[in-house]
Amino acid sequence: MRKYAFGIDIGGTTVKIGFFETAGRLVKKWEIPTRKDNGGEMILCDIANAISKELKKQKIELNNIEGIGMGIPGPVLENGIVNKCVNLGWGVINVQEEMSKLTGELKVRCGNDANVAALGEMWKGGGKGHNNIVMVTLGTGVGGGVIIDGKIVPGAFGAGGEIGHIKVSKTETAVCGCGKTGCLEQYVSATGLVRMAQKYLNENKKGSMLRNVKYLSAKTIFDAAKSGDELSGDLIEKLGETLGTALSYIACVVDPEIFVLGGGVSKAGDILVNTVQKYYRETAFHASRDTAFALAELGNDAGIYGAVRLVL
Amino acid sequence: MRKYAFGIDIGGTTVKIGFFETAGRLVKKWEIPTRKDNGGEMILCDIANAISKELKKQKIELNNIEGIGMGIPGPVLENGIVNKCVNLGWGVINVQEEMSKLTGELKVRCGNDANVAALGEMWKGGGKGHNNIVMVTLGTGVGGGVIIDGKIVPGAFGAGGEIGHIKVSKTETAVCGCGKTGCLEQYVSATGLVRMAQKYLNENKKGSMLRNVKYLSAKTIFDAAKSGDELSGDLIEKLGETLGTALSYIACVVDPEIFVLGGGVSKAGDILVNTVQKYYRETAFHASRDTAFALAELGNDAGIYGAVRLVL
Repeated sequence: MRKYAFGIDIGGTTVKIGFFETAGRLVKKWEIPTRKDNGGEMILCDIANAISKELKKQKIELNNIEGIGMGIPGPVLENGIVNKCVNLGWGVINVQEEMSKLTGELKVRCGNDANVAALGEMWKGGGKGHNNIVMVTLGTGVGGGVIIDGKIVPGAFGAGGEIGHIKVSKTETAVCGCGKTGCLEQYVSATGLVRMAQKYLNENKKGSMLRNVKYLSAKTIFDAAKSGDELSGDLIEKLGETLGTALSYIACVVDPEIFVLGGGVSKAGDILVNTVQKYYRETAFHASRDTAFALAELGNDAGIYGAVRLVL
Repeated sequence: MRKYAFGIDIGGTTVKIGFFETAGRLVKKWEIPTRKDNGGEMILCDIANAISKELKKQKIELNNIEGIGMGIPGPVLENGIVNKCVNLGWGVINVQEEMSKLTGELKVRCGNDANVAALGEMWKGGGKGHNNIVMVTLGTGVGGGVIIDGKIVPGAFGAGGEIGHIKVSKTETAVCGCGKTGCLEQYVSATGLVRMAQKYLNENKKGSMLRNVKYLSAKTIFDAAKSGDELSGDLIEKLGETLGTALSYIACVVDPEIFVLGGGVSKAGDILVNTVQKYYRETAFHASRDTAFALAELGNDAGIYGAVRLVL
């Protein structure tokens, strides 16, 4: 294997670029803006230029580069075709082919960003040492990635690991971003937790530290729970029950070695893991009751780690 | 590849043996009894003897045999170790190693019987032409198999594809065979459907053909629904909603190309597929709404087909 490779994580605002030794060490990372004008037509060129500039600066020849792995914020089919990436303005585009042309025919591999982050966590983060993991990213929404035998499960329609859209409530009236109602992400994302807190505060007379908070956030709710606020504690229990139950469904499908919890909400730490795991164990099929749980470890770098792993 | 191979499906009463050309043709199939006395210690010997006798009879040398694939009615770990198979009386046993010793060191591969049947349906049955399928077996219980990239997902604890134990009700009081309550199999297996019918008939004054039936079975309920019995129709709708919703969870995890429905209940045919698919489409994440549905085609032979596929 050649000595170096790139891991690219394309986001709606910035593109994260990681320059790696193929042995696994991150040599350097930096960001460039994501130019979305004209249907995002400059994004790949900008990345190719950034790579080319860096190689010149470091005096490294192209034939020392193993390839470029990329995480894309949209559905990626197995052949590397991106099927409409609304966040970037892209329609249907063969990213692997185009990027390869722009970089002197380097090997390029793509994956959905949530899936790629899961791969990164498996390789160098919370899922290290495992080959079969499910990662759950609790951020503004809920993303996920399913890794079987060390490989991403992209799904037939690019929806592998879309666990935020498991329907967990039949009675919900609020509409999810996906157009349906009762999706997991409406309850256990950062946004979902705040929504549930507001609902709870309105429908409930119980005193709570949260009533004195000007801007509710997932962090303020977890902090209040940690300091003993009863209502906040109830909310975290409810989140744990909802997510733990959903993870028990997932275990009946792919039965992973470990669940890795990441995203902003996971900064809450042990209280999150312990509560989710408690309810998971209550609901899981007996054989899978002892699935491991861990927090993600790579933070925003999970994407570049997972991306470079795609070409190794 | 050598010219022949065996596919073995071990059941609680009989062992099904299939003698195949490795090109895929089933040459001959037969059954032997499953001797369960003394912790099932004779089962593997009996199979080895049956194979040896058949080869002598047909004057085929051992070096024409590619290997033996086996479906086992219990959890099988990736290394071929069976972890307690209650139905056969087995404790922890390395089936691959033992069977190989008994057959002059032939290559042996094992899988859980429901998973192996799924592989068979992918190869030669309702899932033909696909590499990513989820099979659902609606029999006395509900089994399943998840195939990704043409390979069984056995799971870290042998519980891959245990979709019958997805918890679909929080309010159920009846206990499932697994010890929990509210499992999918309590509603959509043959037994589950009959249970729901009895409950419905008791709690409901509505007239129904089912009230004149002496022994309720899944078949009588489907037949009544097909001939226009309203109460039976309601029961089938309910089954479709419960199963269709559970399949939408599965699609958010592995997003298969196709769902294949098998087992005794699937003999009901199109009415089953159409009802399940209708509710699936209502609940599924938009990207996966068009997942294909099909009936299983191999019946009781799915096991031997899938088993032999393990060694090809």
